[in-house]
Amino acid sequence: MRVVIIGTGLIGTSVALALREHDAGAEVWLADSDPAAARLAADLGAGALLPDELADPADIAVIAVPPAAVAATLAQAQARSLARYYTDVASVKQLPVAQAAGRGCDLASYVPGHPLAGREKHGPAAARADLFLGRTWALCPLPQTSPEAAETVTALVRACGAVPVRTDAASHDRWVALISHVPHLVSAAMAARLETAPPQALDLAGQGLRDVTRIAAGDTGLWTQILSANAAPVAEVLAAVAADLAEAARMLADGEGSKSVAGLLDRGQAGAARIPGKHGGAPGEFTVVQVVIPDQPGELARLFEATGAAGVNIEDVRIEHSPGLPVGVAELSVRPGQVATLLEALDAGGWPVRR
Amino acid sequence: MRVVIIGTGLIGTSVALALREHDAGAEVWLADSDPAAARLAADLGAGALLPDELADPADIAVIAVPPAAVAATLAQAQARSLARYYTDVASVKQLPVAQAAGRGCDLASYVPGHPLAGREKHGPAAARADLFLGRTWALCPLPQTSPEAAETVTALVRACGAVPVRTDAASHDRWVALISHVPHLVSAAMAARLETAPPQALDLAGQGLRDVTRIAAGDTGLWTQILSANAAPVAEVLAAVAADLAEAARMLADGEGSKSVAGLLDRGQAGAARIPGKHGGAPGEFTVVQVVIPDQPGELARLFEATGAAGVNIEDVRIEHSPGLPVGVAELSVRPGQVATLLEALDAGGWPVRR
Repeated sequence: MRVVIIGTGLIGTSVALALREHDAGAEVWLADSDPAAARLAADLGAGALLPDELADPADIAVIAVPPAAVAATLAQAQARSLARYYTDVASVKQLPVAQAAGRGCDLASYVPGHPLAGREKHGPAAARADLFLGRTWALCPLPQTSPEAAETVTALVRACGAVPVRTDAASHDRWVALISHVPHLVSAAMAARLETAPPQALDLAGQGLRDVTRIAAGDTGLWTQILSANAAPVAEVLAAVAADLAEAARMLADGEGSKSVAGLLDRGQAGAARIPGKHGGAPGEFTVVQVVIPDQPGELARLFEATGAAGVNIEDVRIEHSPGLPVGVAELSVRPGQVATLLEALDAGGWPVRR
Repeated sequence: MRVVIIGTGLIGTSVALALREHDAGAEVWLADSDPAAARLAADLGAGALLPDELADPADIAVIAVPPAAVAATLAQAQARSLARYYTDVASVKQLPVAQAAGRGCDLASYVPGHPLAGREKHGPAAARADLFLGRTWALCPLPQTSPEAAETVTALVRACGAVPVRTDAASHDRWVALISHVPHLVSAAMAARLETAPPQALDLAGQGLRDVTRIAAGDTGLWTQILSANAAPVAEVLAAVAADLAEAARMLADGEGSKSVAGLLDRGQAGAARIPGKHGGAPGEFTVVQVVIPDQPGELARLFEATGAAGVNIEDVRIEHSPGLPVGVAELSVRPGQVATLLEALDAGGWPVRR
């Protein structure tokens, strides 16, 4: 596959790295309005700098620029016949589609896209070939989009290790408002309260606060553009969240909190239960076994050696730490059918286990 | 140490398990208003059922009942001289303290406490000896509390593997409103929006949504009581979060979103940056190295064998999965001084690495 990446930030560079990891023969060219960013991506092994002219058009040009810049970039790329097909990776879809139509871009060769993957870091140095592994990647072909364009871009998505999901731009924007954009603002609003908190309060912080506020560390400039470009659907969901919280605050202040708060908590439980499991399967697909391990070199090796020798495939590991204590706790996720074998192996190795 | 646990739910049973793991000779008695819960805790190895009378008072009685039941339970326990000293584990402190004073409890022997640890599950079956490892545990001795009582309860907290943090009840309640109670409601309000979401929208959900909504799965009954008992400080912080979100929604709907949203995102970044790192140290204490590994038995063993042999101590591991693909990505956290050695070991073992 011959691919041009326009915009070598986190997403563009990660696409390049993923394509080259998938297929060592893939030809990838890199361009960015900031030449230093393109050079850094090239130095990272993402591909070659885009020359002034390509002998033949590439198969696909991936436009990995902020949402408001997609249409202009697409128009320029099409004007010089850079590729046979075009896709973008912006987190909103209606805005670039409308702007591309307004500019008279060729929509037959354009497949609007959006990989549901990201990090709290940005720029080419944060890129990872594995960024899209197992993630969903929305594709929103237009009525004008040719089947060949859609097929070729779908192949690129699969080559990156992602799972293509077809929808239309309007549905996409409503959905990501709910599952991505509003959660980002909610996380930010919670984290904003910590700005002036006493250090002793922050010392008490547990995992819950860390989880709720993790995504608040994202890039303000990019997120402002994303949220503004999807303003109406975001505003609608956000207003509903704000109203629920304001109502809870009012009832708590009036000493009538129990009922309204219980209702909100119940609805929250029901909503949280609808999110598909982290491995893409139903919750409970894996069983977690907890093992106490000494916090020193070689201990994990011994543990994984024993489980590997027993034929147990550890699907996930999390290690919880105990600052100042000589032990940690490893949480091993395995398929339920392997739990008995795992427990035997751990028992034989002398590890204290708790399920 | 001789300890009575009153209330064998998640926290009480975990305290019992932690004490027995710390000191095989610890004597632990278990009581619960639900005899089946106490029996289950005993069956799990948490201790012996509390007899009608103890020959001598225990050292400490740990009152692990919901906030509104603490004072009555304390009064009963003191009336029968169950222990020399008493502590509780309720998530709010001013309510039980005021109620205990109102009932004429002996405050010299009472050390109000609150371990900052929990799970989304509850009941004795969810208990873990390691629940408190490395977690903070607030202790709020009263002006009347004897130094001996405070010292003895502090020793119990350390025996559970936790880090005692001394403060007063009013500060405690303000702080946990900010770092625990409001995040819980914010998480619930976000998750509540998912209750009626189309399944296709949920299929697009990424890690961000999962993190923000994880704690929304908590126990409604207990959390309603906690929030109601800390109503004023929770209402104040919650109203501020709601106002920020309502303002952002209004500005987005009016097409003037950029500026207000950017301000909120910047404040969120600044707040999130103030949370101490997950290992209790500064962020950046550990460096994360990413390794691509085949998803099959024995591969992790080989990896940890190589790193252990190189003398590298892996502080944390996270494995990201790629459903349907034959590889996963392990994120290894190590101290910065060990990165070079780790990279050499990985390189020698033939693992593709990305920092």
